[in-house]
Amino acid sequence: MVGLPARGKTYISTKIRRYLTWLGIKTQVFNVGVYRQRLSGLNKPHTFFDANNSDAMHQRKEAAEAALNDMFQWFEKDKGSVAIYDATNGTRERRAWLHKELSARDIKVLFIESLCDDENVILANIRDVKLSSPDYEGMNPDDATKDFMERIEHYKEFYETLTEDEYTYIKLVDVGKQYIINKVHGYLESKIVYYLMNLHVRPKRIWFSRHGESQFNLEDKIGGDADISPRGEMYADALPGLIEKHLGDRPLTVWTSSMKRTIQTARHLQYPKKHWKALDELNTGVCDGMTYKEIEEKYPEDFARRDEDKFNYRYRGGESYRDLVLRLEPVIMELERHENILIIAHQATIRCMYAYFMNLEHDELPYARIPLHTVIELVPRAYGCEEKLYKVDIEAVDTYRPKVPPRPTNQLTEHEASRIGASGEIADNSIPVLPL
Amino acid sequence: MVGLPARGKTYISTKIRRYLTWLGIKTQVFNVGVYRQRLSGLNKPHTFFDANNSDAMHQRKEAAEAALNDMFQWFEKDKGSVAIYDATNGTRERRAWLHKELSARDIKVLFIESLCDDENVILANIRDVKLSSPDYEGMNPDDATKDFMERIEHYKEFYETLTEDEYTYIKLVDVGKQYIINKVHGYLESKIVYYLMNLHVRPKRIWFSRHGESQFNLEDKIGGDADISPRGEMYADALPGLIEKHLGDRPLTVWTSSMKRTIQTARHLQYPKKHWKALDELNTGVCDGMTYKEIEEKYPEDFARRDEDKFNYRYRGGESYRDLVLRLEPVIMELERHENILIIAHQATIRCMYAYFMNLEHDELPYARIPLHTVIELVPRAYGCEEKLYKVDIEAVDTYRPKVPPRPTNQLTEHEASRIGASGEIADNSIPVLPL
Repeated sequence: MVGLPARGKTYISTKIRRYLTWLGIKTQVFNVGVYRQRLSGLNKPHTFFDANNSDAMHQRKEAAEAALNDMFQWFEKDKGSVAIYDATNGTRERRAWLHKELSARDIKVLFIESLCDDENVILANIRDVKLSSPDYEGMNPDDATKDFMERIEHYKEFYETLTEDEYTYIKLVDVGKQYIINKVHGYLESKIVYYLMNLHVRPKRIWFSRHGESQFNLEDKIGGDADISPRGEMYADALPGLIEKHLGDRPLTVWTSSMKRTIQTARHLQYPKKHWKALDELNTGVCDGMTYKEIEEKYPEDFARRDEDKFNYRYRGGESYRDLVLRLEPVIMELERHENILIIAHQATIRCMYAYFMNLEHDELPYARIPLHTVIELVPRAYGCEEKLYKVDIEAVDTYRPKVPPRPTNQLTEHEASRIGASGEIADNSIPVLPL
Repeated sequence: MVGLPARGKTYISTKIRRYLTWLGIKTQVFNVGVYRQRLSGLNKPHTFFDANNSDAMHQRKEAAEAALNDMFQWFEKDKGSVAIYDATNGTRERRAWLHKELSARDIKVLFIESLCDDENVILANIRDVKLSSPDYEGMNPDDATKDFMERIEHYKEFYETLTEDEYTYIKLVDVGKQYIINKVHGYLESKIVYYLMNLHVRPKRIWFSRHGESQFNLEDKIGGDADISPRGEMYADALPGLIEKHLGDRPLTVWTSSMKRTIQTARHLQYPKKHWKALDELNTGVCDGMTYKEIEEKYPEDFARRDEDKFNYRYRGGESYRDLVLRLEPVIMELERHENILIIAHQATIRCMYAYFMNLEHDELPYARIPLHTVIELVPRAYGCEEKLYKVDIEAVDTYRPKVPPRPTNQLTEHEASRIGASGEIADNSIPVLPL
């Protein structure tokens, strides 16, 4: 990363890490600021960042080296693929040093510079992110902002924007206004660059809903292209009211899969609609139309293998969750580009998209709870998403099949623990129920 | 388009048109040079392009306007989606005029500038493309080159590179070295920009082969994940020799689908391999494992509908050719980025990729002949691909199912006529047979 403080470097690093990790590419962020806090302590005033403060300069270089060394270790021992070195790297000299150190170890370098002169964007960034940093704990917000602005001034004195055309780089100018892309040829580099070009920072909401209960749900069958049940129809009737209530006067687009049950669920919604084949349910191949019980009887080995590694298990003639993630990548890219979207899809496809936004690991992803007759609202924030569940009060069968053997309650992942109450139900306090 | 002559504007226009048309987006190129030739005649010497030649300047503006008016007609009457206005557009004034005229009609404008100062690239472009222009028919190549260089000089005198940051644009610097992307936000604009960033002009070859004959082929069944037959094994044995012979010492990567029959066919090839799920055969849903005869009996209506519009026909619970094109888009993008690739896949997936490179219409695509035990070699040239077929002398069943009712021989498309002899077989002269 390259850029003055409060230019969104850490935001960009986090987004890239989440995107690549979701795709199955091992990615880690090495934030030099964290190393500096660890080595030199917190609550440093802006004078610590003055280039004339030679003692501090020495400590800061030490932090930069410590982060770099950990990064080398991670590449070697943990077999990492993409490391993001999150620091200002604001001089040609510093970048030349980095480029030399990295190239010597056969690590390809992509510089990502974030340039921004819009005072409002910078102030918003300081307010949203920097004031909650441990550096400013307990300080009055106005004083903290003033100190941070002074800190930026120290960096500005020596800051040199990227002009080294021998390097591979992307320069992001004024949050999406302009991009300058230099010598980008590799596969991963191109992927990262394209992803960055699709990000925007306008506020948005994403709603996910499974189709209303289907005839196949009632019969405990998987796959197929069944109609929705009478209770599913009731859910379809209730959906416009629920969405209107929480949407306000924002514009909205509705995406469904190409399957009958999602199109039927969306039919009373009066918004522009798009049907994506990519949102179709996980293809269960030869097991299409069977019950779990039938699968267990007919393919007992497969059934056991699926529980062992559900993310990678591919149905005979069908797909795995890993296949789904790749199929959904263009949908995620479009989701990033858009503002308010309601997606009506299926258990497995919603799990994959939900995992992207909530940063779930691949082993958690296939077990995420996406209940029927419930709308999940996600509001992206600086470093994650806020989640709300709106459960519509229309009964539906429970299609959730827990891991076998189940994970003991005291080994729930952090994310599961935050969503699931002791009874195994989603905690009530997170469900603003819509009375009908 | 924006750029001096011989900067690849027409090449870029043609590529974009082919790519978008393949995706199903109606696209047309309006080349002002062609209008100028039509209005003012051919064989104009470079003095015609001198800005002091006011009479000629008048005629050239007239050509620009005629092309623009046809473009407006096309948007309105033919309901086109993307028009490419292929001309120099080398001054701020000309671009302001265009931008005003287009915006007034609610047409969004994306400027694509190709900048290049590499004398060798420019000379190569003149030699490969310009000398065969009707403007230079019958002229000695050296004189023609000299005249064309003079023509460029006239344009250079007034050329202004894009700096109007209020416009949406992409600037391509030195054939892929650098890209400057300004205010690109729309869906189609982003798609075009990403596509342009993946193009390169290094020479390359693409080889397509279907898997060796499979057990299902022998039984006339579609779909499934069958093994290859004994004759399929013989083809797999013969493949390394054939490839080696035509590859020479170029590097190669082999891509297969995730299905057994393509992986088995590739197994004796000693090159890096990648297995793409996206290359899997068209999913035939409920018809998987059936013969065409069984389908006709069980789903007679579907069977007839498929013949009516094979590109859009989607198998129940399965895919259409249109779905396949979308699924294959990332593969095409990777093919554009790579140099030499051998793809071992399936009839339908190869048809889609073949159609992209050979510029087939959607109604021709599902009927393209991709015979078993044959390697198709494509060599991309400036405005199309050269094709060669290498038929391996190992018998295989013929899985080709012609259109019903068949297209009369005198109504063959231009492409079909070029490939298919009167007997309905692929013409012998295009098949360098490898003796075994």
